[in-house]
Amino acid sequence: MRPSGRAPDELRTLTIEPGFTKHAAGSCLISFGDTRVLVTASVEDRLPPWLRGQGKGWVTGEYGMLPGSTHTRGNREAARGKQSGRTQEIQRLIGRSLRAVVDLEKLGERQITVDCDVIQADGGTRTASISGAWVALRIAVDKLMAEGKIEEDPIETQVAAVSCGVYDGTPVLDLDYPEDSNAGSDGNFVLTGDGKIVEAQVSAEGDRFDQEGLLRLMRLADIGCKEIFAAQLKAVGK
Amino acid sequence: MRPSGRAPDELRTLTIEPGFTKHAAGSCLISFGDTRVLVTASVEDRLPPWLRGQGKGWVTGEYGMLPGSTHTRGNREAARGKQSGRTQEIQRLIGRSLRAVVDLEKLGERQITVDCDVIQADGGTRTASISGAWVALRIAVDKLMAEGKIEEDPIETQVAAVSCGVYDGTPVLDLDYPEDSNAGSDGNFVLTGDGKIVEAQVSAEGDRFDQEGLLRLMRLADIGCKEIFAAQLKAVGK
Amino acid sequence: MRPSGRAPDELRTLTIEPGFTKHAAGSCLISFGDTRVLVTASVEDRLPPWLRGQGKGWVTGEYGMLPGSTHTRGNREAARGKQSGRTQEIQRLIGRSLRAVVDLEKLGERQITVDCDVIQADGGTRTASISGAWVALRIAVDKLMAEGKIEEDPIETQVAAVSCGVYDGTPVLDLDYPEDSNAGSDGNFVLTGDGKIVEAQVSAEGDRFDQEGLLRLMRLADIGCKEIFAAQLKAVGK
Amino acid sequence: MRPSGRAPDELRTLTIEPGFTKHAAGSCLISFGDTRVLVTASVEDRLPPWLRGQGKGWVTGEYGMLPGSTHTRGNREAARGKQSGRTQEIQRLIGRSLRAVVDLEKLGERQITVDCDVIQADGGTRTASISGAWVALRIAVDKLMAEGKIEEDPIETQVAAVSCGVYDGTPVLDLDYPEDSNAGSDGNFVLTGDGKIVEAQVSAEGDRFDQEGLLRLMRLADIGCKEIFAAQLKAVGK
Amino acid sequence: MRPSGRAPDELRTLTIEPGFTKHAAGSCLISFGDTRVLVTASVEDRLPPWLRGQGKGWVTGEYGMLPGSTHTRGNREAARGKQSGRTQEIQRLIGRSLRAVVDLEKLGERQITVDCDVIQADGGTRTASISGAWVALRIAVDKLMAEGKIEEDPIETQVAAVSCGVYDGTPVLDLDYPEDSNAGSDGNFVLTGDGKIVEAQVSAEGDRFDQEGLLRLMRLADIGCKEIFAAQLKAVGK
Amino acid sequence: MRPSGRAPDELRTLTIEPGFTKHAAGSCLISFGDTRVLVTASVEDRLPPWLRGQGKGWVTGEYGMLPGSTHTRGNREAARGKQSGRTQEIQRLIGRSLRAVVDLEKLGERQITVDCDVIQADGGTRTASISGAWVALRIAVDKLMAEGKIEEDPIETQVAAVSCGVYDGTPVLDLDYPEDSNAGSDGNFVLTGDGKIVEAQVSAEGDRFDQEGLLRLMRLADIGCKEIFAAQLKAVGK
Repeated sequence: MRPSGRAPDELRTLTIEPGFTKHAAGSCLISFGDTRVLVTASVEDRLPPWLRGQGKGWVTGEYGMLPGSTHTRGNREAARGKQSGRTQEIQRLIGRSLRAVVDLEKLGERQITVDCDVIQADGGTRTASISGAWVALRIAVDKLMAEGKIEEDPIETQVAAVSCGVYDGTPVLDLDYPEDSNAGSDGNFVLTGDGKIVEAQVSAEGDRFDQEGLLRLMRLADIGCKEIFAAQLKAVGK
Repeated sequence: MRPSGRAPDELRTLTIEPGFTKHAAGSCLISFGDTRVLVTASVEDRLPPWLRGQGKGWVTGEYGMLPGSTHTRGNREAARGKQSGRTQEIQRLIGRSLRAVVDLEKLGERQITVDCDVIQADGGTRTASISGAWVALRIAVDKLMAEGKIEEDPIETQVAAVSCGVYDGTPVLDLDYPEDSNAGSDGNFVLTGDGKIVEAQVSAEGDRFDQEGLLRLMRLADIGCKEIFAAQLKAVGK
Repeated sequence: MRPSGRAPDELRTLTIEPGFTKHAAGSCLISFGDTRVLVTASVEDRLPPWLRGQGKGWVTGEYGMLPGSTHTRGNREAARGKQSGRTQEIQRLIGRSLRAVVDLEKLGERQITVDCDVIQADGGTRTASISGAWVALRIAVDKLMAEGKIEEDPIETQVAAVSCGVYDGTPVLDLDYPEDSNAGSDGNFVLTGDGKIVEAQVSAEGDRFDQEGLLRLMRLADIGCKEIFAAQLKAVGK
Repeated sequence: MRPSGRAPDELRTLTIEPGFTKHAAGSCLISFGDTRVLVTASVEDRLPPWLRGQGKGWVTGEYGMLPGSTHTRGNREAARGKQSGRTQEIQRLIGRSLRAVVDLEKLGERQITVDCDVIQADGGTRTASISGAWVALRIAVDKLMAEGKIEEDPIETQVAAVSCGVYDGTPVLDLDYPEDSNAGSDGNFVLTGDGKIVEAQVSAEGDRFDQEGLLRLMRLADIGCKEIFAAQLKAVGK
Repeated sequence: MRPSGRAPDELRTLTIEPGFTKHAAGSCLISFGDTRVLVTASVEDRLPPWLRGQGKGWVTGEYGMLPGSTHTRGNREAARGKQSGRTQEIQRLIGRSLRAVVDLEKLGERQITVDCDVIQADGGTRTASISGAWVALRIAVDKLMAEGKIEEDPIETQVAAVSCGVYDGTPVLDLDYPEDSNAGSDGNFVLTGDGKIVEAQVSAEGDRFDQEGLLRLMRLADIGCKEIFAAQLKAVGK
Repeated sequence: MRPSGRAPDELRTLTIEPGFTKHAAGSCLISFGDTRVLVTASVEDRLPPWLRGQGKGWVTGEYGMLPGSTHTRGNREAARGKQSGRTQEIQRLIGRSLRAVVDLEKLGERQITVDCDVIQADGGTRTASISGAWVALRIAVDKLMAEGKIEEDPIETQVAAVSCGVYDGTPVLDLDYPEDSNAGSDGNFVLTGDGKIVEAQVSAEGDRFDQEGLLRLMRLADIGCKEIFAAQLKAVGK
């Protein structure tokens, strides 16, 4: 029995509020239950030096948690003077996930930075970030296309992410914080709208697992991402 | 004529949404027009070493801007590895303003950290932060009192802040971004519910000003803060 | 009664020794009683990137305290690896104050950096820094004009600063360290030779104040700056 | 056809030289072809503060690349002043992998830090690090047991890691640098001597993959780790 | 012929102004020609953790250059966020030189930090720092003895330092900046009042030298330090 | 009697293994007894900005100690976020020593960075680094000459370094760790193949020394470096 009473393959209530802020080219506030992430996609015409003059663009992700977002207040990374290894690992995953569904040549010589800032954390902030990042990116790219700055759509398909893990012996979908901190093993899956995998990552936190366990989590991820894909499309009005 | 069409002594639309997030003891989302700041007040029973054993508590403020909050995306301070001088100056002002209306002995040996994170910036983020910080602090202290952890109310009165400046020759209240970036001189005033001043600060950005100019801005600040005090009370249900 | 026996509107003994060091284009050692600040103005023909090619120059200030300058030895900021928020706030104030009396176009495409290093601290280091900074700047600009590098004098008027505060219920001018650490409210005023204000900033450290209190401090500042202006002129031989 | 001429399921030449340095409690130099990593395991009786007094120990990993280890000289992280996100991600993986096979209570209140320093890099440095880390840890723990400091063996089983990926359409084992930089997708698998999984992680670098692809890589990892387990045992003389 | 017209074994004009600042326990302003260093010695009753409870004290040195002290303005190390290798090397040398003449047990469980801040630089700042540091230390220790905090004098003898080098083929004493930047080889010698050596260090900047060259510089150092010793004694009134 | 039983003028067993790693242009593993340093020389065609366009190259050194190289594990400098003063001092010495025997104009507009990473430390790591650095540099330059990129040999002579010190009253050569930590005074000498001195540096750690003491250490250094020169030549096959 899950603490929340959810069925093993049941996502938390998922809402996506597009256009939550107005200065960035694209934005949304995505919520998986009590996990809420504000995502903004900003477009810059300037590329990092190592990418200039190659006729293609770049998509990158940044991630942060507001100090008051967690059950116990966390330190402000800007005050500590550096980003934790966890923050950097998540940033790299967000960027990699988005680039896996973007044709960088069609994007043209510009950079889109997708900022994912966690306003309230209750487990699954990195997967919520990726799922929301696609929405903000889609809105930003639509705007660039409407302005005639991009001709062909560089976004090849959707991308979404969800966590799965073994809680109290049972494989469950979309772990919340009480589950996450007690899972024997858990993982994050980044899947695409065309049925492919961008990232599959499962770690034993306590109990080592086997191949069958990995496949069960994968099946749950598949179920969860289908629902997220539908919510993404609805949010961008398609 | 102000770009927004407002009268010289007219605040932007002010809304305060209390309890915007749920992990912190107190929180609100405060908006002055397009400037939106998420404020959370977190309570810790641990004091910084230099304050322990003195029978009193501490209230401090932290401030940040989400990278996507501005018209042009800003750098993430955590990635740059340090907070700007401006950020630190604002943090000191928030803490000083709150402490001016709190009896630290009645608060008891605990620390309340008020985090002000700008979600959308359109001028006046520091004054919105202070005005919202009082609301989050009030909610957190009410909770501590309801839980019986504090006996006597340590908050002596309200505190609010507003900016004023000379735009196109006319003293105006609550500058938005287009006004702020063109003001000849501008200032921030932190006033209290009992009609006193905590901080008065006016700088010439271009045109040096005189004592009469200072007093005119002060009068506008008085008008503005009265309105903010009313909104604060309504937000905390008093 | 002030600890020093001074009258409420009496400055500490003020001396300005111009040309204290010789490598910088302009320099002085300014003393307000036991507060002593070494100021140097250095000219560089290179502007920061964001200012190049606009036909105008820049004036900026830096500030530091020697570790042995205070009653109890302070940490060396270079060893701690960062400047405090207070240091940065003061630096920004010095730069802003100087630029308020300089026509940057007449200065031409060059940068003048005014370094204010506190050799001995006894309260009022930021205001002594600003008052000395004008002298070092004046000397440096005179040199540039004598060398024919600048044609028209870019310095429009004098600028000086002084602190005022309420000590033991009485408004007093030019607080020394014993007064400063016990003042109920205090402020810094930056005034110009043409009778204008560049910065007025008053904070309640303990007792909230009112508008009448602000005006009394302002009147004291006016008295003090007049004396400083005279000393500045004498120091630069005018 | 692989650039090295290896069969798809063929490891590079694997050698483990135990006791390569003598100050650390355990050490080895592990080579997968041209990838060479020096691993040392150091024992400290002091635990980090958050672990003290719980009757158990800790195992952690650190990772670095010598600047001259790569085809093009890399920057020294100590000179840059921070470790990259990649370095921190690898460090976390090494620690997690080792802890998955260690009973921390049997280890007692001590910390073992396993340093993995890459002397020569040719792909697969993180998996070589983990595989060598087990050897250094085993030697250090044997020493502690021989000295009577630990009674029961805290190491439950072996742990080893290997990379796999899809190179030119074919799933291959143990990617070297030329393969790694051209792989469509690749992953790292951390497996244990009792046939379980500690970490499975596959990323699409270019081509998104599917579940069948993931399983194929998993099968290759299984083959590779069996060979590494045998080499580990031989190195520690068991 | 030296640029300054000095004889090869002639020091620059040497002045030591004791008690230049008043908050530190000991201080002086030392000048070797245009090189001027402000030195303060501060006493703390607290020792660094690794020295506590051993019945002895510690003497350490810190060093800095004011940005405006050099011919071309230097960067502020506090703003750059770290001290250069040169700064740290000099700091270590100052501390080592002072400790070589202090009986740390007689000093008792306290730390004396000697800050050497270069106000004007014209070559030889590190040797001027050491020579002045002894004076500030002597004054501070005399004060501790007068206060009855130290019974037996912990300072065993004097210590002074001077640079020598080969300029235009001739060994010369006390290099100024024009000589220093053109010397084929140069060195720094730290000698003590009892005719011993604490540090001898000679480097070839361009021309490699031989043993005879080393001895010639050593003889010059001997001449120079004798003069400095006399000036030190005069400064401390002995 | 030395702890190791060596004669006063006896080096530890010295071995140089050239070509220890293969990506860098030159490399060796140099051992003085239990002190082992891995040295790599990397060639870059890009010069630092301040050296460009002057028709000459640059040689620089970097130094590090692996955390597990010492008797007690040291902190990783990359994790601490900065290099110690000792590390930077050694780096400067390595670079200066190499440049003293290289004609930078004949080297052409390229930079050679020699990395010295201590794998096992038992005293004398800086002198082993310099002695090994020449070997790696020689191999790298030979390669550049063989490739026709350099016409005339820029290396004028050999350079080697050795430590000497007074242990238990006797001047001894090549101090190992037990001697080094108990020496009354010790020094490092950098000598060249043509009988000259690049750097002579002797410090009193406890006992101040005199000129005769300095000369005795110098004679020992002379004996030691002759042996190292022979080993260097053998290592590079000349």
